[in-house]
Amino acid sequence: MKLLFKIFQIAFFALPLIAMRADKPLKVVFFGDSITQAGVGPTGYITKVSEMLRAKGQDAEYELIGAGIGGNKVYDLYLRLEDDVLAKKPDVVFIYVGINDVWHKASSGTGTDADKYVKFYEALIKKLKAQNIRVIVCTPTVIGERNDNSNAQDGDLNQYAKLIREIASRNSVQLCDLRKSFQDYLIQNNPENKEKGILTSDRVHLTDAGNVFLAEKMLEALVQK
Amino acid sequence: MKLLFKIFQIAFFALPLIAMRADKPLKVVFFGDSITQAGVGPTGYITKVSEMLRAKGQDAEYELIGAGIGGNKVYDLYLRLEDDVLAKKPDVVFIYVGINDVWHKASSGTGTDADKYVKFYEALIKKLKAQNIRVIVCTPTVIGERNDNSNAQDGDLNQYAKLIREIASRNSVQLCDLRKSFQDYLIQNNPENKEKGILTSDRVHLTDAGNVFLAEKMLEALVQK
Amino acid sequence: MKLLFKIFQIAFFALPLIAMRADKPLKVVFFGDSITQAGVGPTGYITKVSEMLRAKGQDAEYELIGAGIGGNKVYDLYLRLEDDVLAKKPDVVFIYVGINDVWHKASSGTGTDADKYVKFYEALIKKLKAQNIRVIVCTPTVIGERNDNSNAQDGDLNQYAKLIREIASRNSVQLCDLRKSFQDYLIQNNPENKEKGILTSDRVHLTDAGNVFLAEKMLEALVQK
Amino acid sequence: MKLLFKIFQIAFFALPLIAMRADKPLKVVFFGDSITQAGVGPTGYITKVSEMLRAKGQDAEYELIGAGIGGNKVYDLYLRLEDDVLAKKPDVVFIYVGINDVWHKASSGTGTDADKYVKFYEALIKKLKAQNIRVIVCTPTVIGERNDNSNAQDGDLNQYAKLIREIASRNSVQLCDLRKSFQDYLIQNNPENKEKGILTSDRVHLTDAGNVFLAEKMLEALVQK
Repeated sequence: MKLLFKIFQIAFFALPLIAMRADKPLKVVFFGDSITQAGVGPTGYITKVSEMLRAKGQDAEYELIGAGIGGNKVYDLYLRLEDDVLAKKPDVVFIYVGINDVWHKASSGTGTDADKYVKFYEALIKKLKAQNIRVIVCTPTVIGERNDNSNAQDGDLNQYAKLIREIASRNSVQLCDLRKSFQDYLIQNNPENKEKGILTSDRVHLTDAGNVFLAEKMLEALVQK
Repeated sequence: MKLLFKIFQIAFFALPLIAMRADKPLKVVFFGDSITQAGVGPTGYITKVSEMLRAKGQDAEYELIGAGIGGNKVYDLYLRLEDDVLAKKPDVVFIYVGINDVWHKASSGTGTDADKYVKFYEALIKKLKAQNIRVIVCTPTVIGERNDNSNAQDGDLNQYAKLIREIASRNSVQLCDLRKSFQDYLIQNNPENKEKGILTSDRVHLTDAGNVFLAEKMLEALVQK
Repeated sequence: MKLLFKIFQIAFFALPLIAMRADKPLKVVFFGDSITQAGVGPTGYITKVSEMLRAKGQDAEYELIGAGIGGNKVYDLYLRLEDDVLAKKPDVVFIYVGINDVWHKASSGTGTDADKYVKFYEALIKKLKAQNIRVIVCTPTVIGERNDNSNAQDGDLNQYAKLIREIASRNSVQLCDLRKSFQDYLIQNNPENKEKGILTSDRVHLTDAGNVFLAEKMLEALVQK
Repeated sequence: MKLLFKIFQIAFFALPLIAMRADKPLKVVFFGDSITQAGVGPTGYITKVSEMLRAKGQDAEYELIGAGIGGNKVYDLYLRLEDDVLAKKPDVVFIYVGINDVWHKASSGTGTDADKYVKFYEALIKKLKAQNIRVIVCTPTVIGERNDNSNAQDGDLNQYAKLIREIASRNSVQLCDLRKSFQDYLIQNNPENKEKGILTSDRVHLTDAGNVFLAEKMLEALVQK
């Protein structure tokens, strides 16, 4: 009798917690370009985050959703924000975009001017914050892995990374400084100063090591605070 | 008595017409780039349309609003559609954009890919049509006035003009084929095959003659049907 | 006796002619880019010219030499003129360059300005003429096969073709107007206005039909008085 | 008699010195782009080198010749090497080119590919060394003065500077590492991380301070054993 009561008592307090964990995992959207599109593949970084959460027994607490499309620039994200992000009612959104905004200047003449990059980026944040969504902004990683600022787009990437840091500060959103993490890693781990083959297979897209490294940084940002 | 009746009778039928003309002129927004920004200046094409309407005694029937910003491309229009167009509750919107989408490829590496040009263009139309706004789409005019397809961007401009014609047809919106009009005019009126100085002062922005010519074409499109 | 004399007499006059034909065929260098590099391959245009000459029994009269290197622009030809052309002491040189000068503007930001294109082109001609070499200049063919001037580089290619025509005239050298030939052909033979697949496999490099067509035009120019 | 002997004695020793100084100053050509073209102006860096030499009483020992043309890239130098440099029979040639090779990629799509930059650069050196001319190669200075590698072209400029250092080493010619000097200076003297206004007026062309600084570096290189 007493035992039964105890069980009921436990159930009474525990059920809501169980319910919360089981019914409402934190919904996280990764919003980005081809790296994020590949992120949900068997070796992609989003898959790696899932695996890391499972290893910690926390996979039920999170629902990870990839929303990456190859070739996307910041204004492409803006165009599909409603359908691909807001409609999913996420709790957290990672914005990870900028490589194509810089790269396409040289490769096809269709990159994004710095001032417009900022304008569209802040328009994204504004709409996400209006839905009380927690926003985490990521600096663009790399186009080329040389560690002495001699990759052709390094100047522009450094500048766009600075713009994101300013955006994070100005809009009071969380920063995940991927470019800094990548640069620090490559100073330590690219002694031959190679263009690719460490974290990327082709100067941009990630090797398995790159996906693991990115997943670690994303997960750190996600569980922070 | 009979006269009084007549007066009443006239008033009965005429009042709604008078009211319509006096209270609710047709609100027309010109949505575009630097050419449209200059369009509201003392010699700009929108000012010319006003003057043409006044000369015909129809100026009270139309309210013309310029919504051009220098350097704008199609995605810039998309970003400011709500604030600069929809908020004004227009009856008619001219979309006249594309020159920078092509030009900036060569001048700053920040033009717009053809497929994305179409995508954003149709997103604009969709939002305008959802408000029952009459849409008139304009093909991009010129970057250089040579009349033998030897201006550097002619190939791309011809292609983007074709895309707009297809967009008009596919979305059942009115077409104002400015590029064709300009090309036809320059074949007749540029015997020395000059790069500028006929309809443009600098290969892109309009001379007084250019503003008049553009105004005529816009007005023709506006009063059509 | 009289006959023998006659035979000797014929031999006396004929031998030098025979010798000339046998010992000294006309040496022709094709100087260009990847299209010319492929020109000496089994299905390349230079190989086709050889075959056409053989079919006419004139193959002994000509020695055809390919001097094409992929990615070359006019200044690359200038750099290797001595080694790859003058050192071979040719009688005739076809200059067929310009596609990369235009194309690389968009694809890698490393095209050639029009004024410098002319400057290097005329420097080539000057050095060739100083060696009494017959020069035949070719207009650039196509980047895309659409026949309504809507390929992205059509404006620039039309302009560079005009520059070559002016160079030919100003320097009194023979013109082989390949671009015009290709354009005329495509108006007749590309009813669906396709981008590729008629004379080119990839908008630039030649199909078998393209190599045959180019060979015909080159041969016409070569045998032209 | 004694006096006459003295005079002869003086003449005997002095004449060669006088002759050397008066008849054959060291002829130095500065071969480059618009910065060098401006270098011979009233406040240009070559003028500054002259003034520095005069202050040291050494102006008679050097003849300084500017051979800069605005907009020049490495292949433009190659085209005019004979006329503008070799014809002047110099003892020393500074090659200072590369800014336009990088910059024009973004500004007009007509920059120079890295591999061709090296090829033309080494062709220049080869021709100069064949005339026993002492060659001093300079790394490109700056396009933008931010000191944290966030100017758009910094990556490319760093890479082209590395290529020049390798060229110097591989060809055993003297290096004047202007880019390193400028970067070191800007780390010390640009605390606000401004884009221009320290050594340059417009991110590229030199202020008076810039001309003085450049002149000092050039002079150091020139007098170096």
